[in-house]
This record gives sequence, structure tokens and C-alpha cells, in this order.
Amino acid sequence: MLGDVTNPTGKSFGSDNHAGVHPAVMAALAAANTGDEVAYGDDDLSRRAEQMLCDASGAAAAFLVFNGTAANVTGLSLMLRPFEAVICAETSHLNVDECGAAERILGSKLLAVPTPDGKLTPDLVASRLGGRGDEHRAQPRVVQLAQLTEVGTCYSLPELHALRDFCRENGLLIYVDGARLANAVAHLGCSIADMAGCVDILSFGGTKNGALGVEAILVMNGNLAATALFQRKQLMQLSSKMRFLSAQIVGLLEDDVWLKNAEQANGMARRLVAAISGLPGVNLAYSMDGNAVFAEMDQELAESLQRDWRFHVWSANGKGRCVVRLMTAFDTTEADVDALAAAMRDGLIHVKQSTA
Amino acid sequence: MLGDVTNPTGKSFGSDNHAGVHPAVMAALAAANTGDEVAYGDDDLSRRAEQMLCDASGAAAAFLVFNGTAANVTGLSLMLRPFEAVICAETSHLNVDECGAAERILGSKLLAVPTPDGKLTPDLVASRLGGRGDEHRAQPRVVQLAQLTEVGTCYSLPELHALRDFCRENGLLIYVDGARLANAVAHLGCSIADMAGCVDILSFGGTKNGALGVEAILVMNGNLAATALFQRKQLMQLSSKMRFLSAQIVGLLEDDVWLKNAEQANGMARRLVAAISGLPGVNLAYSMDGNAVFAEMDQELAESLQRDWRFHVWSANGKGRCVVRLMTAFDTTEADVDALAAAMRDGLIHVKQSTA
Amino acid sequence: MLGDVTNPTGKSFGSDNHAGVHPAVMAALAAANTGDEVAYGDDDLSRRAEQMLCDASGAAAAFLVFNGTAANVTGLSLMLRPFEAVICAETSHLNVDECGAAERILGSKLLAVPTPDGKLTPDLVASRLGGRGDEHRAQPRVVQLAQLTEVGTCYSLPELHALRDFCRENGLLIYVDGARLANAVAHLGCSIADMAGCVDILSFGGTKNGALGVEAILVMNGNLAATALFQRKQLMQLSSKMRFLSAQIVGLLEDDVWLKNAEQANGMARRLVAAISGLPGVNLAYSMDGNAVFAEMDQELAESLQRDWRFHVWSANGKGRCVVRLMTAFDTTEADVDALAAAMRDGLIHVKQSTA
Amino acid sequence: MLGDVTNPTGKSFGSDNHAGVHPAVMAALAAANTGDEVAYGDDDLSRRAEQMLCDASGAAAAFLVFNGTAANVTGLSLMLRPFEAVICAETSHLNVDECGAAERILGSKLLAVPTPDGKLTPDLVASRLGGRGDEHRAQPRVVQLAQLTEVGTCYSLPELHALRDFCRENGLLIYVDGARLANAVAHLGCSIADMAGCVDILSFGGTKNGALGVEAILVMNGNLAATALFQRKQLMQLSSKMRFLSAQIVGLLEDDVWLKNAEQANGMARRLVAAISGLPGVNLAYSMDGNAVFAEMDQELAESLQRDWRFHVWSANGKGRCVVRLMTAFDTTEADVDALAAAMRDGLIHVKQSTA
Repeated sequence: MLGDVTNPTGKSFGSDNHAGVHPAVMAALAAANTGDEVAYGDDDLSRRAEQMLCDASGAAAAFLVFNGTAANVTGLSLMLRPFEAVICAETSHLNVDECGAAERILGSKLLAVPTPDGKLTPDLVASRLGGRGDEHRAQPRVVQLAQLTEVGTCYSLPELHALRDFCRENGLLIYVDGARLANAVAHLGCSIADMAGCVDILSFGGTKNGALGVEAILVMNGNLAATALFQRKQLMQLSSKMRFLSAQIVGLLEDDVWLKNAEQANGMARRLVAAISGLPGVNLAYSMDGNAVFAEMDQELAESLQRDWRFHVWSANGKGRCVVRLMTAFDTTEADVDALAAAMRDGLIHVKQSTA
Repeated sequence: MLGDVTNPTGKSFGSDNHAGVHPAVMAALAAANTGDEVAYGDDDLSRRAEQMLCDASGAAAAFLVFNGTAANVTGLSLMLRPFEAVICAETSHLNVDECGAAERILGSKLLAVPTPDGKLTPDLVASRLGGRGDEHRAQPRVVQLAQLTEVGTCYSLPELHALRDFCRENGLLIYVDGARLANAVAHLGCSIADMAGCVDILSFGGTKNGALGVEAILVMNGNLAATALFQRKQLMQLSSKMRFLSAQIVGLLEDDVWLKNAEQANGMARRLVAAISGLPGVNLAYSMDGNAVFAEMDQELAESLQRDWRFHVWSANGKGRCVVRLMTAFDTTEADVDALAAAMRDGLIHVKQSTA
Repeated sequence: MLGDVTNPTGKSFGSDNHAGVHPAVMAALAAANTGDEVAYGDDDLSRRAEQMLCDASGAAAAFLVFNGTAANVTGLSLMLRPFEAVICAETSHLNVDECGAAERILGSKLLAVPTPDGKLTPDLVASRLGGRGDEHRAQPRVVQLAQLTEVGTCYSLPELHALRDFCRENGLLIYVDGARLANAVAHLGCSIADMAGCVDILSFGGTKNGALGVEAILVMNGNLAATALFQRKQLMQLSSKMRFLSAQIVGLLEDDVWLKNAEQANGMARRLVAAISGLPGVNLAYSMDGNAVFAEMDQELAESLQRDWRFHVWSANGKGRCVVRLMTAFDTTEADVDALAAAMRDGLIHVKQSTA
Repeated sequence: MLGDVTNPTGKSFGSDNHAGVHPAVMAALAAANTGDEVAYGDDDLSRRAEQMLCDASGAAAAFLVFNGTAANVTGLSLMLRPFEAVICAETSHLNVDECGAAERILGSKLLAVPTPDGKLTPDLVASRLGGRGDEHRAQPRVVQLAQLTEVGTCYSLPELHALRDFCRENGLLIYVDGARLANAVAHLGCSIADMAGCVDILSFGGTKNGALGVEAILVMNGNLAATALFQRKQLMQLSSKMRFLSAQIVGLLEDDVWLKNAEQANGMARRLVAAISGLPGVNLAYSMDGNAVFAEMDQELAESLQRDWRFHVWSANGKGRCVVRLMTAFDTTEADVDALAAAMRDGLIHVKQSTA
């Protein structure tokens, strides 16, 4: 072992998916488990969950699905015909990490745009609008954003307003992958409704926020929701015992558990950034706007840390430097962060010695 | 109110989906919720769940998905190219109740065959094999059975052997929708492996058996599993916090909870059949082979009962007679059944009086 | 050889696809082959063909595609989302003879209805409307007719009016597979517009009528045409040298060649029916309403005839009787028909002798 | 009008699709139009066309389809499951000009790679192979090349050999879009078989070479052809009067008409390059390797020329410069080229004067 400081807490920085289920969600599941209930969402608890989601976001309708890929594809299914295309960041989860689900399920082309920081801009969107009206070209119809983006950055409200205005002028709809929407809201200090008001359909991720497994699709304009029940069922996302998806949402929304969870995760990411900000040879690769710290460092240091800590090496430049992703979650503690930071400091010393 | 006997227990006979989560499953979920764990199934609990499923069935591989429609479509995706067709019973869940998911997701045609009792036979399958090798025809490739069928009947092992032999001789694969496989196993007094050995891929339904929401796809021949991880992800069925799907499976398989649950449901269905067997004008519409009682009765009686009891009217003949489906579940009690039977007896008296 | 009468003309009764290209079409192709022309339909000849089609039918727009399967699938693509279903006759070409193209390309379920004569009725359509609004069911949206049907029968205008009225009352659209629309128009003595006015989208088949290979999609309501250019291109049906598809249409529509062709084919089918009407043991299986004669006869006779004549055995009852399909085309002559009829008479004598 | 030289021949340089049908093809169509023939390709002429294609290329099987998009999508359908991806040049016709047909019909993701000259290299392909075996990623399976590329460049045989070796080592198949394969063969001075031997499936384009409308899919390895008849039919590409597609192929292959056509087109492109090579401010944007001349020039010049000549402005830099595409065809003459070159010289003088 290069360093002496190990991982005393066992905490993973690999993903906010590595965290378990928040106690409030477990309690809500238990509370929902009383006797019989109608299936497929025609129950009071499900109506309550939907109402809470609509109240918090200003949405006209809300639909629960099982996971983030399904939220993206089902959400997009409400906006697209197969000859229409989606403009998205090249790094987006939709484009990279969903095994081509959008193409297979929707039949639509993704127009993936390289970005410096995972964020689209009106100019970047405009660059893919050539060929509108030309029958030979897939027709751009939806701009897909992620909030947070896949590299942990967050659109500001002015940035969203600019995109909204551009899209409205150009006959484009906006879909937001909100797998980490809570972290974005906490980062911006706004409300869900502030963000939702800029777009047409967005997902609100429960799973990474502390749920067992549930994502909500929020449809701002009721017209877009007209086919949602059928699309959700046909896309294999209708839960029979729906009350247990709904309970998770209620567990997160009551008492603002979702926001506290996001704030905790974000706070721990800020603490991690502060702790490593002065470390020689360790740099932030992207603006840290939520709960994902992308740190550039020597590959030797990263490998040393991976012996005791779980995290992803995002990319490597082939010349000894790499970018690692360090994710915090609702249950990341100060002790977890401090131990990791100590390990990095310690590792730097040992790496330096070993290469001296 | 026509009858005086109401529903003192509040039990639904509408669906085994109306039941909640079995305590063993809730306990398993709680036990799995300890600290961090790797996502997407690369964890010990998930490996254990898969091993338990393979041990119980003789399967080469097992894959967990979110719901029954997904199990069917993902399972079929391992066997089919889009120009290949599925022979299934016209009444099958796949054909009737999945909003066309198979057609949309797989692109394949369903060749739906009318059956007297929900069950396919070699002769019925043979009736749809015309046109093999003819490029104008979708090519039959998979025979889809349900065990239990949608009308509550159960294939005997000899019936399955006959279908297996026929299919092997004719280059057909067999897929079994096992949303209620546990009830079938309990009914036949065989093992899961006895049944699985007759087919190529089958699902094992957890949800209706007492889980919160999980279904397993059991692949008997490892070659058919080669693409399963990719298909599952692309079909939006990969759970990030997989341990919580796996925990449900472990909770059901440990101590044969699944079998006890099925036996309880089946026993209560038998009790219900016994209780109503002598009632005038009430007849079984199908052989009762598991936990679904299809009873033919006067529509007036059905409507009377529906004031206090939840169940589906399956069909009506337009002349005052109808068939109702009465489902039992793992948590149906003798008191529930006796109360419903009493209500039926009582209802018959009142209906008779009112029409006298 | 059982009979002495062979096939002196070499004419096939196997399909109207066995005929070649009508001289007027060949002339139109040659006339179109003069120098350069813009591709993809933006040329005068293509505009003329579209205008002629719209004038003849009252359509708002017309689109040319390569073959009949493509006309059906592309036409339906203008009316359907994947969770919506098509009600069609079980015997329809769409359901039986297109290798599952509709399911794969559109993702939609076909609700195939058994019919006595290949024709749907309001009652038959109504029988498949259960489950509308139920998210578990594919939602019927289009009623697909064929005119002529696959068994050679023809909807009368009153039958079409009844279907139109029923569909409008029930929120259903009508699509007509008009691969043999010309034969139907000739049979009914109406105009294309009379028929087109009863439906929403129909195809007008050129290929079987004497073209080299072209089918037109006629869209009666312009709103339904909004996406047609994109759908046609994405469905691989946009011809680059479109003028040569258009020329075929012009060749058929000018001087009513299409109608004369259909009348010739129909007249020869009537002549065949007359010639065989008195033959012992030879019966019409379906009403002969165009250019397809379905004759029931002894299998031995059919096999005897097949030595010299090309036609399809449509079905066999397993007890020595079968139904054969005898198709006439624009170039079938009286001599062709008389020779076939003579062969049938002759065959009957020999078959009788051989079995005596 | 800026220039005095107009377009005396009326020849389009807009596309090789603007040309008509070669006389040899028209003659072959007429020769095929003699009496009845079996449909769907089961005729002698079709067998002859397929045999000629296999003989010329070394293919195990050949299949005719209607157009280039269909050739690409049907060809790829023989190699791909929906979770598998296609690596292609960002500028490829498949990616840009087919309205998303591949995504809709195949469900597969296109991994589009920016290239300097429309050509992929082993290194460019390697750059998209990350994530193989990772269930979250669409799995690269096919490398799609175009020969000629969309920007008129041609892979040399050594380049193809390098790609073939790389792909074999990496478990990748190669598909070639050969809409202009004849031009590439003529350019390289090799045989079709020389080129075909480097790849797994390729198309051979008839339409741009002088046909009315036909493309061939050549399958080098017979195993890949096993599903082709069904895929072609389901993808709506089976011609009923197939003999008339086959006749076009025979017309082109007999007496090497295809090669002479390609040589004529290529020669005229070379003549055009020679004529404009010394013009001030006019530069070749890409290597001219067949029949497409991409010339960079002042937008003002391009606009001036477009008054009399038909061609595409491919791109514009927003600062007064643009790239135009000038295509030659089998029927482009020296007079056509010389007239265009004269117009360019003339236009340059006038543009210069007008801006002086």
C-alpha cells in the first residue's frame, strides 16, 4: 500500500447509486404496506404522490417509472415521431450510457453535439438545425438537456431562459434529464418550479436522491401528456403495485427530504473540493455545481487511491494524467470526505517519494 | 343493498396485484439497506439471488427486471429477430394486456390462436405453421405459453412434454410467461426445475407472489443468454440499485416463502370453489388450477357483490349472465373466502326474491 | 398427362403480378427519358402525376412509393402512433403476406378479425373495440380494408358508407389497401372519387394494373399528409429518379388506360366464371367481384391443371377438395380463358375416368 | 446576368441522379417485357442477374432493392441486432441524408466520427471502441464505409486492406455503401471483386450509374445472407415484377456498360478539374477520386453560376466563400464540361469587375 490512510468508513465515491435507501423512504414503504390496494396507480397514495409532484413543479401531470433510462425514453416518447431528432450533448447519459435505448425504442436519431462542459447553448443547438424541412434529414424537434449534466455542471436559470427562448422561437421542445435535478435545485437555490417553468418535460430523479428506485416524468403542458399512460405501459414502465413507487416519492417530498438529501450531497462535494483545492497536481476538470467532483490527477495517484476507495476513472490522456469522478450522496459524511482528502494528501506524498 | 353480508375483512379478490408485500420481502429489503453497494447487479446479494434462481430451476442464467410485461418482452428478445413470429393464445396477457409492447419493442408479429381454455396444444401450434420458408410470411419461431394461463388453467407436465417434443421437432423455441409460475408449481406438486426443463426461457414472477416488484427471466440454455445484459439495459430494465430487486428474490426463495405463498393462495381458491360449488346458477367457467376462480353467474348477482367486494367482470354474454374472476393471494385468509362465499349465498337469495 | 388440352397461350393465372408492363406505360417511360431532370419528385412530370391522382380521387395529396407493402405501411404511418392498433381482416394481405412489415416498421398491433368473405363490417369492427381508454390495451385507431379484398370480393358503396359512418362515430380512421382498386372501381361502375370519399387514406395500385412498379398513396385529408414526405423517405420509399415512377402513373391515367385494363381483367374473370359455372364439382368459393376467381374443386383436378397452367392452390380441406385462385390481368385474352376452361372440362372427364 | 456564357446543353451538375436511363437499360427493360413471368424473383432473368453480380464480385448471394437508402438499411439488417452500433463517417449519407432510416428501421445507434475527407481509418474506428462489453453502451459491430464517400473521395485498396485487417482483429464487420461503387472501381482500375474481397457486405449502385432505379446488395459470406429474403420483404423492398429490376442489372453488367458509364463520368470530372485548376480563387476542397468535384469558390461566383447551371452549394463559411459540388454522370459530355468551365472563367471576370 502506498499510503497509510485507508477508508475507515467504507463509503463509496463511485456513484450516488451506490448509496442505499433513505430511512424516510423505507418508512414510507412500510406505511404503504397495509392491506390491499388497487393496482396500476388508481389508488390514493399514487394520486397524492402525483399531486405533490405537480404542486412542487407546476407540472400538469406526473408519471412514475422505474429508472432513469426509462424516464428519458418515455419522456421523449411524448414529444417525438420517429423522423424527428433529439439534439443532445455528446457526453449525455442519453447518448452514451443507455445502450442505444432511445434509438431502439423511439426510432429517432440523436444529434450529439460536442460541448466543453456538458452544456448546450443556443449557438450549439443552432449548429444542428440545418436541413429543417428537407425530407432527407431527420428533423430536430427536441433539445435534451441534463440538469446536472453528466460532467456535474449545472445550467443557471439565465442559461435555461436563453435556451427556452431560443427553442420557442425555433419550434423546438425541451426535455430535461433530471436524474440529479434535486442537486441542481439545491445548487441554484431556486425551486423545482423555477427550473421546470423553462422546459416542456423533465424528469425528477428519486433513485440517486435516496429512493429504492423511482423516477418521475413531469409534463408541464397537459397536451403533451395525452398519450403518456399508453406510452408508459407499452414501454414496460407501468408498475402493478404502484403504491410502492408512489410511497417513495411521498417519502422524499414530505418534509423536503429530497432537498435536504441534495444539500447534504452538495455540501460534501463542496467540502471535498475545498479539501483538495490546494493539492499540487490535482485540478478540477469541470465546474463543481452539485455532487460530482471531476478531479484531474496523476494516474499513479488515482490507482493508489482505488486500492481503498471506489470511484470511476473517467478518462485518461495516455500520458500519465487522468480525470476521476468522485460522487457524493445523501449519506456521505464529513468523515468520509475528510478521510478521502487525507488519503489524497497522503498518496501525493508517497507517489512523490516513489517517483523521486 | 341486496344482501346483508358485507366485506368485513376488506380483502380484494380483484387481483393478486392488490396484495401488499410479504413480511419476508420487507425484511430482506431492510437487511439489504446497509451502507454502500455497487450498482447494476455487480454485488454479492445479486449474485446470490441469481444463483438461487438457477439452483431452483436448472437455468444457465437469471436476469431480474421490473415487471411482467418487461419479463415477457425481454425474454422474447433473446429468441427473436423481427421477421420471426410468436405463436400465443389469443387470450394471453402478451397479446391482450400489454398495450402492444411486444410488437413495438420487438417488431415481431404475434400469431394469436383461439383456445378453449387458454392453453396451446401441438395441434393448435401446428395450425399456425403454414408459410414457413415463404418470405411473405412472418416466420414462427417461439411458442409462448403462460403458466398459469390468463384464465387460470395450468399445463400439466405431460402437456408440457408434448409441446416440448413438438417444438423441438419443428424448430420452435418455448417461452413461458410465469407471472404465476409459483401457483402452477404448487398446483402440480412438482419443482420449478421440472417445469423449466420443458422450455427454453421462462419468467418467474415475484410481484404477484408477494414481492414489491420484481420478475426473473430464467434462461435454460446459456447460448440464449449471450445478449441478455445488453437487451435488458436497452429495454430500460436495468435497475441501478439492483440489490433491492435481488433482496426481494432472496426473501421469497429463502425458506420456500414463494411456495408457501402460492400454496396459501391456491388453497384459498380451492376453498372458494368448494364453497360455491353447490350454489344454484353459479358455475366454474374454467378448470381452477391455481389461484384464479372464474365463476359464471347472473349479472345481477355479480353487480350485487361488487358493492362490497372488488373483482373483475371478465365477460358478459349480453343476456344477463357473466363470468367474474376471483383471485386469491398469499394473504387471502379463510375468513376472507368464507365472507365472500356467504355474500354469494346471501346475494343469491336476495336476487331470487327481487326477481320473484 | 390426364388431359389433352394444354396451355397454348402460355398465360399465367397465378397472379396479376405475372403480367408484364402495359405498352402505354412503356411509352411513358421512354417519353420521360429525355435529358436531365431534378431528382426526388421536384419535377414537372411528378407534379403532373400527383395532380392527376388528386383530380381523379379528390385527394388532398398523393405520394408515390415502390410497392404495395410499402403503400400500406407508409399510408398507415400517417395515421398511427405505436400504441395504436389496426383492425383488419384476418385474411388481409397486410396481416398475412407482408412478413410482419407493419408490426416491425410501425410498432403497432394488428387486430385481425375472422371474416366470412374477407370483408369487415361495422359489427365486426365493433367486436374489437373493447378496452378503448384502457392503458393495458393497444388502442384501435385505424380500420384497414382492402378493395378488392384478398379473396377477390368488393365492398359496395353502401357497405363503405356504413363503415365510414360507423368509423366517424367511433373516432376511427379508414385506410384502404387499393392494390386492385382499379378492378373494384370497374366492378362497381363508380369513380375513384366515389370510393375515396368514404375513407381517409387509400392506395391506388399501379403494378397489378399494368405498371412496371409503382403505387400511389392518396391522402384525402390534408392534415394527415403533414408528415408524409419524411415518413416516405425514412421508410426507404423515396425514389431518386422519381420521374420514372411518375411516368408510369401518367401512362396509366391518361386516356383511362387504368380503367380499360381493369375492365379487361374483370371481363375475362367473368368469362371464366361463366365458362366453369356449370361444371360438376366446381364451385365459386367467394363472390367474384373483380379479377380473382376462387374455385373449389377436386384436388386431383387442380393438380392435373397445374401441369400446364400456373395458379395458386389457396387452401385444401385435407379430404380431396381444394380452393384454387385464378387471377386475370389486363392482358388476359378470351383465348386464354377459353383454353383454361376447356382444360378444366377435359380434366374433369379424365379425372372421372381415372377414379371410376 | 453577371456572365455571358449560359448553359447551352442544359446539363445538370446537381447529381448523377439527374441523369436519365441509359439506352442499354431501356433496351433490357423492353426485352424483359415479353409475356408472363413469375413474380418476386423466381424467374430466369432474375437468377441471371444475381449470377452476374456474384460472378463479378465473388459474392455468395445478391439481392436487389429499390433504392440506396434501402440497400444500406437492408444490408446492415443482415449484420446487426438493435443493441449493436454502426461506426460511420459523420458526413456519410447513412448518417446525414436518410432521414434517420437506420435508427428507425434497425433500432441501432450510429456512432458518427468526424473525418477530414469522409474516410474512416483504423485509428478513427478504434476511437469509438471504448465500452465494448459494457452493458450501458451500444456495442460497435459494423464499420460502415462509402465507396465513393459522400465527399467524392475513394478508399485505395491498401486502405481497405488495413481496415479489413483491423476489423477482423477486432470482431467488426464491414459494410460498404456502394451507391457509386462503379466510379470507385473505375478510379482504382481494379475489379469489383478486388474491392468486395475486403468487406463483408456491399451495395452496388445501379441508379446513379444509368439504371431507372435498382441497387444490389452483395453478401460475401453466405452465412450473413441467411435472413436476407425475409429482411428484404419485411423492409418493403421486394419487387413483385422483379424481372424489371433484374433487367436493369443485366443491362448494366452486359458488355461492361456499368464500367464504361463510370469511366465516362469520371473522365468528365477529371476534365472539369483540369479546366478549373488554374482559376484564381477556385480550389478543390477534397481529392477528386471519381465523379464528384468539390470546388471552393467565392459565394458570389457560385450564385452567378447557379442562374444557368444546376448544382449544390455544399457548405458556406459565412465569410463569402463556399464549397460547391459538381457531379458528372454517364451522359455528361465534353461540351457540357467545357461550357461550365467557360462559364466559371467568365463569371470570375465579371465578379472581379463588379467588386472592383
